[in-house]
Amino acid sequence: MNHTPINLQHKFSLFNEHWSPKVIAEMNDYQFKLVKVQGEFVWHDHPDTDEVFIVLAGSLAIEFRDGKVTLNAGEMYVVPKGVEHRPVAEEECQIMIVEPKGVLNTGDAESELTAADDVWI
Amino acid sequence: MNHTPINLQHKFSLFNEHWSPKVIAEMNDYQFKLVKVQGEFVWHDHPDTDEVFIVLAGSLAIEFRDGKVTLNAGEMYVVPKGVEHRPVAEEECQIMIVEPKGVLNTGDAESELTAADDVWI
Repeated sequence: MNHTPINLQHKFSLFNEHWSPKVIAEMNDYQFKLVKVQGEFVWHDHPDTDEVFIVLAGSLAIEFRDGKVTLNAGEMYVVPKGVEHRPVAEEECQIMIVEPKGVLNTGDAESELTAADDVWI
Repeated sequence: MNHTPINLQHKFSLFNEHWSPKVIAEMNDYQFKLVKVQGEFVWHDHPDTDEVFIVLAGSLAIEFRDGKVTLNAGEMYVVPKGVEHRPVAEEECQIMIVEPKGVLNTGDAESELTAADDVWI
């Protein structure tokens, strides 16, 4: 058994791409993914699952059709399944997302922003 | 819809008990719980689920029958289902755990340390 801690800052140091989730841990059929984000993402929803956002550095806005929430480092939010949302970060922001294995970053809105699934780092 | 961030430090400021998980968020049938820990917990396992530990402040050792892992702030670890473990913190440590709703903190080893389930803060 591997008794090594998963260090979030070390994992973030290993990549620079934006909007490209990297899996760092798996719990049952769920995954913990790190993402560096900057700019405006695409409007989308995840019809079958809630999605957790935890901001580790910087500031992330999540826009909804009826408003928005702004998350700073040390804050989290659960986007309910089926709710359209668009993440936006003016400056680079480091986040961890938690969701079931197999969920695509663009949900129902596949596009050039759709990242490869299940990429570990 | 409630567009309010969940601020981890604010949530931690609302309680002082040790080994008493407080639910702060729910994602599908999983819960995110904050816990302040200090001292030695009881040996136990969770026969049906993995369990995620994320250390937010301080330092946490998780002892296993074949070794241990020490997690500092910004580090996480997944304890696989069925693996006996004992969390130990020399000084007070603030952690977030992620696991399915309904999981007791003492797993298969109910005792005076078994905390009430599903307590939100």
